[in-house]
Amino acid sequence: MSGPQAPEPTLEGQADASAGSPDEDAAEGIQHSHRMLSFSDALLSIIATVMILPVTHTEISPEQEFDKSVQRLLATRIAVYLMTFLIVTVAWAAHTRLFQVVGKIDDTLALLNLACMMTITFLPFTFSLMVTFPEVPLGIFLFCMCVIAIGAVQVSQPPAWLGSGSGGCRVEDRGPSRCGMSSLGCCPGPTFWSPQLPRSPRPSSRRAHRPPPQSRMLSWGHLLVPTAPQEPSAILQSYLLMAMVIVLPHVSKAAGWCRAQLVGLREPPAHSVEVFTFDLHEPLSKERVEAFSDGVYAIVATLLILDICEDNVPDAKDVKEKFQGSLVAALGESGPHFLAYFGSFATVGLLWFAHHSLFLHIRRATQPMGLLNTLSLAFVGGLPLAYQQTSAFTKQPRDELESVRISCAIIFLASIFQFAIWTTALLQEGETLQPSARFGGREHAFMFAKLALYPCASLLAFACTCVLSSFSTAIFHAMQIAVPFAFLLLRLLVRLALAGLRALRGLVGPVLARPAPGAADEAQSPLLPAPC
Amino acid sequence: MSGPQAPEPTLEGQADASAGSPDEDAAEGIQHSHRMLSFSDALLSIIATVMILPVTHTEISPEQEFDKSVQRLLATRIAVYLMTFLIVTVAWAAHTRLFQVVGKIDDTLALLNLACMMTITFLPFTFSLMVTFPEVPLGIFLFCMCVIAIGAVQVSQPPAWLGSGSGGCRVEDRGPSRCGMSSLGCCPGPTFWSPQLPRSPRPSSRRAHRPPPQSRMLSWGHLLVPTAPQEPSAILQSYLLMAMVIVLPHVSKAAGWCRAQLVGLREPPAHSVEVFTFDLHEPLSKERVEAFSDGVYAIVATLLILDICEDNVPDAKDVKEKFQGSLVAALGESGPHFLAYFGSFATVGLLWFAHHSLFLHIRRATQPMGLLNTLSLAFVGGLPLAYQQTSAFTKQPRDELESVRISCAIIFLASIFQFAIWTTALLQEGETLQPSARFGGREHAFMFAKLALYPCASLLAFACTCVLSSFSTAIFHAMQIAVPFAFLLLRLLVRLALAGLRALRGLVGPVLARPAPGAADEAQSPLLPAPC
Repeated sequence: MSGPQAPEPTLEGQADASAGSPDEDAAEGIQHSHRMLSFSDALLSIIATVMILPVTHTEISPEQEFDKSVQRLLATRIAVYLMTFLIVTVAWAAHTRLFQVVGKIDDTLALLNLACMMTITFLPFTFSLMVTFPEVPLGIFLFCMCVIAIGAVQVSQPPAWLGSGSGGCRVEDRGPSRCGMSSLGCCPGPTFWSPQLPRSPRPSSRRAHRPPPQSRMLSWGHLLVPTAPQEPSAILQSYLLMAMVIVLPHVSKAAGWCRAQLVGLREPPAHSVEVFTFDLHEPLSKERVEAFSDGVYAIVATLLILDICEDNVPDAKDVKEKFQGSLVAALGESGPHFLAYFGSFATVGLLWFAHHSLFLHIRRATQPMGLLNTLSLAFVGGLPLAYQQTSAFTKQPRDELESVRISCAIIFLASIFQFAIWTTALLQEGETLQPSARFGGREHAFMFAKLALYPCASLLAFACTCVLSSFSTAIFHAMQIAVPFAFLLLRLLVRLALAGLRALRGLVGPVLARPAPGAADEAQSPLLPAPC
Repeated sequence: MSGPQAPEPTLEGQADASAGSPDEDAAEGIQHSHRMLSFSDALLSIIATVMILPVTHTEISPEQEFDKSVQRLLATRIAVYLMTFLIVTVAWAAHTRLFQVVGKIDDTLALLNLACMMTITFLPFTFSLMVTFPEVPLGIFLFCMCVIAIGAVQVSQPPAWLGSGSGGCRVEDRGPSRCGMSSLGCCPGPTFWSPQLPRSPRPSSRRAHRPPPQSRMLSWGHLLVPTAPQEPSAILQSYLLMAMVIVLPHVSKAAGWCRAQLVGLREPPAHSVEVFTFDLHEPLSKERVEAFSDGVYAIVATLLILDICEDNVPDAKDVKEKFQGSLVAALGESGPHFLAYFGSFATVGLLWFAHHSLFLHIRRATQPMGLLNTLSLAFVGGLPLAYQQTSAFTKQPRDELESVRISCAIIFLASIFQFAIWTTALLQEGETLQPSARFGGREHAFMFAKLALYPCASLLAFACTCVLSSFSTAIFHAMQIAVPFAFLLLRLLVRLALAGLRALRGLVGPVLARPAPGAADEAQSPLLPAPC
């Protein structure tokens, strides 16, 4: 509401001065893609995580024991949940890579992207079908249809907008990391590509080049569909193929990396195997990895309260009859659930906090780090199951310890994969880490302690369940709630430890001073905040 | 994985050269707040929207008619949903304003923010209590407790990090808009504040200044708690007070604006009523408005598939008995649900698309625009109810038309408020809109058509339900799915219309050339992309 300060002409002048300014672009229907990307990230992360619900809603009647059959049922559902989570994240990775090449969008592209999202949101249903009718291949058939549709939509998106393929992708991919913390992956792309982009888009034009993400998406479809005939024997086979599709790129990547370590550093075999793998060796945009992870953590934290609202609002009749109309007494009965809720939320929140602190020190997320992050998120998505377990079995002391063990296992896996991200980053610390987080860096010890806290805590709790027979879910949740204060305590302890560590700085100093491989401009640039 | 290009020293030199670079800050535990903010936005938007679930899960047995009692029940629940949505958005707005002042965070602040989020995620439960036991004031009492806790947490957050209050807020608020599309509100704050921020935070220090958001949050609590004694008469009263808390700032804002229009443009009475209202007159950070809206649209689109996965996976027994084991036949029975799902998703997606295109042309979101956006989102959050309605009553032709009407009403309200944002922006187009979207701008007519499409379409459908007795939900959903193609058709039509409009350009030209108030540097600067 500030008064007039400058006449319009100046404004126009500035607008014209900056080529490809949002205004100019908007005027011609070209839009920066960052908001569409954050929307897609939110949708994909929610979809990937929502698939835990069929697992958590596995009915286990109170009188029925937590026996082998229930365990097997849970195990299969969890397996399918994990695989589908991974598939959605592969689709997300393809989407990310696609839009690392596509700098700007127009309305047609936005609508096509929405169509792609609609197909992806339909995946959970095919997943539910697979779970409910494991012997009928219709579910997996629909799943493959969705994947093919996604691939088709993505193929129809980019060509009008592509730069010059691999080289373009590499440079474009360097763009976001150049902007680092100061942009969410949106700023450099457009400015970088605007000279090379056609001003008025014609999606039908320039279909010549087709980037791998979509051909990969399509290739799954062709891989999977032939394996979905009417005999159930093919289903396992198609699951294996899915797993291959997920793991294979990372295996090839790991192999290439190991070779690079043995033979000595060299360019990855990108240009040799152009069509399929050139961008598999490109790190994902760190900003979109963060956005996707945020979405997963946010929806997990919210699924918890969903369960509370659904299950723990006492029935009006019960309150009248059982508790003589005293609502407080009725709520008191489901007290353990609230304890479980706050404990689980504290866990989710602090896992997010650790992830946040970790990526604060990460410059770029390489392929293996992305895979480890995906696995960590997959287990974070399993936390509602942990909550369900620990809050559902409070009646039955025999199963109580077992459910606590399951929760500990989930939390341990979620946190140990976070820790693995950190260790993997340390392997190429020059390229992936901020100097302060490297060996001998000021934050190194603190990061280590932060990330080691949850694995240790969950292992401790697991050990307690084996040793103390009196260990209960209440104690477990109390432990969960206590961890935040452990964080603060940790902060003090590490500050003290750092003083001692600085004394030893001289010994580890050379490690810090060693010229790190690939610490060139694109690795350095995230340190520079955008001079806005 | 690129080879070594530059030695470490250069890297260190650059790092030292850029004051307050992410690395330096991270080294001292100071972090840029943008990721914490996007995480909070995701959580808050999901929480605000999840509250529709108790409404959609209102059991209406098929044999029971959609009679007055059910309607009254639904009406009350919807009313509470709307009010709670608004309360959460007010909390979000307070959070936004708070972190427009707080540029950087440290671990303590991040943990406090998580505690604040945990309290907010508990609001839906108090909401459910209010709905289930409208006569017992415990629900609203817990609600007030949560609000007070949120206020307390927020009060304990900022002082260590505050700049010089009002002026600081104003400048800081100008910061993000300076970065415009090129940052999500994270980039300028830190760089702007880093000189004025203490290097090593002590949350206990500098408690002197306390920005309005928290005092406002607290003031609700104090307003509401006295009104939650044991006699139910006070409940209506406290609801009214809540409504006042929500509406009052906007009323005062609107009054001030009208006065400004009558008396002539002048600074809002910020400094006169320092303590309570100075930042109510600051526009919200456009980037966070977009992030919050994205979250709402994403979770709404996902709630739809949740219903599908919960309700429409046929039971194994039924398939065996009713359909002789043919899964396809079983799925065919719930075909209308899938049609309804795709129709609803198309609606949500295109409402997001319209919102996206609208904010593409908006420079800054003023207070009334924020309120209208909130209202629009509140009705978008009601779309799962529309889906539920139209998919639940396909059996009963009598109620079918009624449910279609409800859906039309919801879609109409959601879209008409979007349209209202646009018209409100046009009132101060110099300050709020990109030149190309103003009167006579190249995109003006197209934006108008885009935003007018859904109100017209929903009105048309509503009219059809009154005229054609044969109108069915199937036709309705087919219409919903057809709209995207209407968008593309619209694009062609408007391109033709624009040619004619350019001929008339000379007449409206002066309006465009008129010096727009407040179109100074901070309004202009979003056009400049960050030179990353």
